Amino acid sequence: MTTAPTRTDWLAAHRERLDGALAAIRSRGYFSAFPESPSPRVYGETAAEDGKAAFEAHRGTAYPVETPGSNGTVSTEESPYGIPLDVQYPRTVEDGLDELLAAAQKGMSDWRKGGIETRVGVTLEILDRLHKRVFELANAVQHTSGQAFVMAFQAGGAHALDRALEAIAYAYEEMSRYPAEAVWEKPAKGDPIRLEKNFTVVGRGVALVIGCNTFPTWNSWPGLFASLVTGNAVVVKPHPLAVLPLAITVDVCREVLAEAGFDPNLVTLAVEHTGDGLAKPLALRPEVKIIDFTGGSEFGEWLEQNATQAEVFTEKAGVNAVLIDSTDSFKALCNNLAFTLSLYSGQMCTTTQNLFVPTGGIETDEGHKSFDEVGAGIANSIGKLLGDDARAVELLGGIVNSAVVSRLELAPEYGQVVLESRAIKHPAYEDAVVRTPLLVAIESKDEEVYGRECFGPVSFLVRTADTDESIELFRKTVDEGGAMTAGVYSTDAAVLEKVRDAALEVGVALSENLTGQVFVNQSAAFSDFHGTGANPAANATYTDGAYVASRFRVIQSRRHV
Amino acid sequence: MTTAPTRTDWLAAHRERLDGALAAIRSRGYFSAFPESPSPRVYGETAAEDGKAAFEAHRGTAYPVETPGSNGTVSTEESPYGIPLDVQYPRTVEDGLDELLAAAQKGMSDWRKGGIETRVGVTLEILDRLHKRVFELANAVQHTSGQAFVMAFQAGGAHALDRALEAIAYAYEEMSRYPAEAVWEKPAKGDPIRLEKNFTVVGRGVALVIGCNTFPTWNSWPGLFASLVTGNAVVVKPHPLAVLPLAITVDVCREVLAEAGFDPNLVTLAVEHTGDGLAKPLALRPEVKIIDFTGGSEFGEWLEQNATQAEVFTEKAGVNAVLIDSTDSFKALCNNLAFTLSLYSGQMCTTTQNLFVPTGGIETDEGHKSFDEVGAGIANSIGKLLGDDARAVELLGGIVNSAVVSRLELAPEYGQVVLESRAIKHPAYEDAVVRTPLLVAIESKDEEVYGRECFGPVSFLVRTADTDESIELFRKTVDEGGAMTAGVYSTDAAVLEKVRDAALEVGVALSENLTGQVFVNQSAAFSDFHGTGANPAANATYTDGAYVASRFRVIQSRRHV
Repeated sequence: MTTAPTRTDWLAAHRERLDGALAAIRSRGYFSAFPESPSPRVYGETAAEDGKAAFEAHRGTAYPVETPGSNGTVSTEESPYGIPLDVQYPRTVEDGLDELLAAAQKGMSDWRKGGIETRVGVTLEILDRLHKRVFELANAVQHTSGQAFVMAFQAGGAHALDRALEAIAYAYEEMSRYPAEAVWEKPAKGDPIRLEKNFTVVGRGVALVIGCNTFPTWNSWPGLFASLVTGNAVVVKPHPLAVLPLAITVDVCREVLAEAGFDPNLVTLAVEHTGDGLAKPLALRPEVKIIDFTGGSEFGEWLEQNATQAEVFTEKAGVNAVLIDSTDSFKALCNNLAFTLSLYSGQMCTTTQNLFVPTGGIETDEGHKSFDEVGAGIANSIGKLLGDDARAVELLGGIVNSAVVSRLELAPEYGQVVLESRAIKHPAYEDAVVRTPLLVAIESKDEEVYGRECFGPVSFLVRTADTDESIELFRKTVDEGGAMTAGVYSTDAAVLEKVRDAALEVGVALSENLTGQVFVNQSAAFSDFHGTGANPAANATYTDGAYVASRFRVIQSRRHV
Repeated sequence: MTTAPTRTDWLAAHRERLDGALAAIRSRGYFSAFPESPSPRVYGETAAEDGKAAFEAHRGTAYPVETPGSNGTVSTEESPYGIPLDVQYPRTVEDGLDELLAAAQKGMSDWRKGGIETRVGVTLEILDRLHKRVFELANAVQHTSGQAFVMAFQAGGAHALDRALEAIAYAYEEMSRYPAEAVWEKPAKGDPIRLEKNFTVVGRGVALVIGCNTFPTWNSWPGLFASLVTGNAVVVKPHPLAVLPLAITVDVCREVLAEAGFDPNLVTLAVEHTGDGLAKPLALRPEVKIIDFTGGSEFGEWLEQNATQAEVFTEKAGVNAVLIDSTDSFKALCNNLAFTLSLYSGQMCTTTQNLFVPTGGIETDEGHKSFDEVGAGIANSIGKLLGDDARAVELLGGIVNSAVVSRLELAPEYGQVVLESRAIKHPAYEDAVVRTPLLVAIESKDEEVYGRECFGPVSFLVRTADTDESIELFRKTVDEGGAMTAGVYSTDAAVLEKVRDAALEVGVALSENLTGQVFVNQSAAFSDFHGTGANPAANATYTDGAYVASRFRVIQSRRHV
């Protein structure tokens, strides 16, 4: 192992950022280390252009990253904006897993010996370099996930970096709970009995990160960095439709590891051809001790039930709910929900699917509103928000893949259409697939429809007998189907209390009366937990102690002194 | 929920004890909250007699503890000392699990609402009351596990209380990482965006504790209290041969919970008839979200692979090893190992099974010792230590069950007997089954023998080519078979370094050159981890962050202010 001169400096260089994060995860107040505005005033005049050029330069080329055991190349991405990407990556096949996993493990001993502070410094330096490439990453996220540029910059860049930093901060705090050395002195007749003890943080083995199509960086980075900083090697397996953002990520990880004198194969990229089914054999390998997965419930549950040799962290599907009981600001309620349903065409795991509204309507600052008027109010706000096509596409982005379009096309049959989905022509990308949200009114008895996730720009206005039934259906659907988010609108303290209780019992985070610039589908790193690990939608959260504590073990030695 | 006047006082009353524990788990220096000496000078003149009387009073009676859903009674215990116990307990059968688990869950909401500090106070008060019954518990542990009285008092009483306190301290620290409230204020154009947030610690559901025969309290209490204090209900399923210590435990838990105004069914006792196989259906119930298990590898692995709806913490079997390379104190080495192999007739999950010794012998302060002389030295020390029957039984205790005797009787065939096991007549209990350790020399090629656990007073002196082969076999056997403990004797710094590295890589705690009053099979609460969770012998440790962090979730709510 060569000791690079810089690597001890990295922790010092990024100490303030780390300390800010450590303070924030304790206070859970506002904190952000990476500016979310892509403005030239923040990032410099040429940053946007340079980043776009860097992205463009990848198109039609072989990405220069090496993967041990790979065989040939593969190119699987399709931009939701319709532009050809044609980036080729090393193809990992089942036959190459022996070589890949052996290579991944090779550097672990040195990585452990580097020690906690070195590993923290290296991962913080990786974040810093990813930040320097944030415009390139944003373009890559945009053209794989379909997110509009600003959202891709924020959710896929700045906020993802914040979530990664949060995971590193939790991991650092967790590893720091144990002293490296201790003297144990037990009183005894005559001389005390004295032992000197050492405590070493040791990674579990190879960590596997399975990325998703919609948030390739935001959902992969917390697990990736939590595993890496705690001493594990990480194999990153991107979704075949969203490889580039993770290829850049792995590239930067390898570059920094190598500079610090560590084996770059501590982080590797395992790209498969669509349909290769590489995730299953990889996940069951005995070398794999940690798995982070974002994606559908079926495969997430399969991992939880079958990859029992590993710690498995999953974020799956859910049926997010908002209960509408009453409000003192009907217009703001409608506008707030309109934004939530429209952002990224509802393709967030946190987008509200079910809006529970009493059949008798609700009391508002504008007087009583019937069930239909509530629906019309939200529909109207969506209409206004998306009235101008050029502005609408910057909020909606593109539809991530054809399965979403199919679901959307089927959904009007489920009930009475309150707001039709319409196709929008993107002014810049003529082949982009852009759709506005569909809102369908549905009866409470139709639980087989709204009780399952209908991922994409489809939401249901569920007609309930009254708020008590709304609460009951909220409990039932979240308990059985899970949820990443929940919201309530009510001016009645007793109703709020009941819903809070229900949310605690079914284990979902609750947003109350959001009427301003905060939305139920958004969570702020360092303050809001993303997911809870307490309902079927996810078995873990970004980020708490449980998310990091089992990624390493503490091994001791002791001797007399 | 009635609020008992005492319950807020309990945390204050035990605050010093808690603070001592919190400081100790950070420093990992020496700490103990419960005196380990059963001396009348510590516990009072009548304590021992009163405790014995309390134990005796249970014999032949129905233990007055209620279990929802139970059906009739069951009496399954057999004292290894041969005295009749005949304590009857409510019998839990599969048909009664619906009722049991519904009753267990009923009080969880109030238990959560009680809050962190109340729950910590209640659990600390439970420990205090268990401590007041420590002599009764010691007798109960003695007559179910077969441990000699002083060991039962220490390992089953004082040290078990320390381990329970340690788990509570870790859980308290873990729950305290999250503020109950926070204000989030994001800078924005014009006024900042402000949210008020609440964070609530919520238990996962019903926790199941599956006890073992040999250490009914020491191995059950950490999981029991870690789960209870974090907001879960706990069902305790004792080993059919070691019920009484856990019946007393559950009894005390219920008494304190009821006094504090909580539902006593938050802790219940589920006793089965030997062979009922209650653990499997219980472990697979969807209400069960946490399982703590101590026992054989086969069932532990079954739980890990099948109870995937729960967080599963297991302590299973292993092949503990000591490498003997050289020593500057041959006599002390022999005496130290003699004690380890003799204590509780080697029926500890931490007792050394394999002693790796080079065929060419070792260098010592008494000159070169051949392989046979090393064996003879240890055998000689054991002989001296156990020379007097009356004193020997106080170290050996009784053989816990007939399966151990069967294994012991088969073991001489595995190799060349270095020290025969002999039966000792117990001066106080004529039907007690007492055996001294058997030491068998075996060739390194016979890995199919020493590579598996042979639980009980059987150890192997494994003849290796040299210390390098000893290290290689140590790595291999621990990697494949797991280990709770490992030791090394060497005067060579390079050898120690190699063994430390090997121990880190196979994930086992290492004791180096123990020649005094500390033994490889003993771990001190607050300082030594018990198990590592990094090798097949156990998937968790007493106690670290990972042992407590996933026993609860943090659920938030947020609103504008």
